[in-house]
Amino acid sequence: MITRVESGTSNVAEQVAELYKAGGHARILGITGAPGAGKSTLVSSLVRELRERDNTVGIIAIDPSSPFSGGSILGDRIRMSELYHDPGVFIRSMATRGALGGLARATIDAVAVSDAAGKDIVLVETVGVGQDEVDIVRACHTTVVTSAPGMGDDVQAVKAGILEIADVHVVNKADRPEANKTIRELKMMLTDSGHASTGGWKIPVLATVAEHGQGVDELADVMERHYDHLISSSEIERRERTMAAHRLKTIIQGVALDRIEDPSIGPDFDAAVEDVRLRKRAPFTVALDLLESSV
Amino acid sequence: MITRVESGTSNVAEQVAELYKAGGHARILGITGAPGAGKSTLVSSLVRELRERDNTVGIIAIDPSSPFSGGSILGDRIRMSELYHDPGVFIRSMATRGALGGLARATIDAVAVSDAAGKDIVLVETVGVGQDEVDIVRACHTTVVTSAPGMGDDVQAVKAGILEIADVHVVNKADRPEANKTIRELKMMLTDSGHASTGGWKIPVLATVAEHGQGVDELADVMERHYDHLISSSEIERRERTMAAHRLKTIIQGVALDRIEDPSIGPDFDAAVEDVRLRKRAPFTVALDLLESSV
Repeated sequence: MITRVESGTSNVAEQVAELYKAGGHARILGITGAPGAGKSTLVSSLVRELRERDNTVGIIAIDPSSPFSGGSILGDRIRMSELYHDPGVFIRSMATRGALGGLARATIDAVAVSDAAGKDIVLVETVGVGQDEVDIVRACHTTVVTSAPGMGDDVQAVKAGILEIADVHVVNKADRPEANKTIRELKMMLTDSGHASTGGWKIPVLATVAEHGQGVDELADVMERHYDHLISSSEIERRERTMAAHRLKTIIQGVALDRIEDPSIGPDFDAAVEDVRLRKRAPFTVALDLLESSV
Repeated sequence: MITRVESGTSNVAEQVAELYKAGGHARILGITGAPGAGKSTLVSSLVRELRERDNTVGIIAIDPSSPFSGGSILGDRIRMSELYHDPGVFIRSMATRGALGGLARATIDAVAVSDAAGKDIVLVETVGVGQDEVDIVRACHTTVVTSAPGMGDDVQAVKAGILEIADVHVVNKADRPEANKTIRELKMMLTDSGHASTGGWKIPVLATVAEHGQGVDELADVMERHYDHLISSSEIERRERTMAAHRLKTIIQGVALDRIEDPSIGPDFDAAVEDVRLRKRAPFTVALDLLESSV
């Protein structure tokens, strides 16, 4: 089903829509952070912990792999190989698709499929540091932001940029010498920016050494506590409203593009592109024409 | 004008459309890569080199800063401070906007404004490692992918993911001990994956130490050579067609979302979201309804 989802025909969209109605039981967890933080190792370790707690798990890993070939990296899969034979775990590595917004759409559909298939927890892993993170927040109940000690200036900036999307912070590779300093800095950044808590939830900063499973049980505890908090504070309604709105907007963007590119529906897209390239007509005007005559 | 563009009213869109007609003279260069590669330093250094060559330059820096507050990081600006007083340089730091696709739209509009304002070269800097990179390629004549020696596994994966989008590879911080190894590996990855050249252009792998300006003149040379190649091979038409199509699609996505959320146009968006949240109606059906009744 996810393979069909990735192929992105509208026929599939209708099937996913039906699956969506059957879902709504899984907890959707997002794990993100800058490259080099060891997210894949953390995910493998966390999934093992969740399995010990008798949760079935779906993993949707978004690879930063070729946007053009649709291929994906083997590294993560190899790291997760021991989980591949566990029938309680479903792993799917999504290639970043070339289409504008194509990945966002395929990902939330893959989450919907895993949810409808009865997984207790669906874990979405991304390696983005930009818009991707915003999108993950809008598709998840709980967002975990992973970092590691001793990364450079750019990473500091990235950290600052994703401070506000985290429900839980993890400093992985915490056996490195500068780990305590990183944790201290992160806590300070959270306090200074006024993001030490969200909706009555005090955002924890956890230390893990995912490679050795250290701190991962605590992470699993915290994730459960966060979900309980969402329920008891009724924050879950607001989150799920955000998730539903994001879902709708993503589909609408996708459908709008599908239609203007479909030669059987609207005017000639290629001719419109050529007008814009040659600056004969203003892009905004052309876009409005295309949209209005193809929907 | 760019401030108005960021605010995103459709009135502005029409003005930008007019500016677009006046533009088309600037070379649009994209610089991207994983965090920690030293992109901002490279950009500063490159701009100094371009100024010595009497090019006026517009810089559109996309910060990985708060998607919610609309704020942006000071770090890059401080680093570029010496360029701020040069009337031949325009610097704009774009905050990542919360809206789906909002950043992509605001960025290409900011590029159009800088182009129409007469800048010879417009430099777009991103710190993304996912969809953002694909988008940058679609908006630029030349894409430079920056990496640095001695980064981790995740970074390797990122590199693999962005191999195909580069017209030029730069290994920055090339005074580090593992630099030659990184350059060798990168060349090998390019050859193995069949991306050592594109459209008759052999993709170079340059070594720079941006902090000391080393290799930056060569980078400026290569960027000029690549533009000349685009012209002489007529590849420029294909590129500019891609740029125009990307521009159209980005606007269409933005307009489609604006309209469904505008209470004065279509049916009640919040009510539709609530139906989806409660799984009363299928998202795909709801999305189609919204789109058809609001366009």
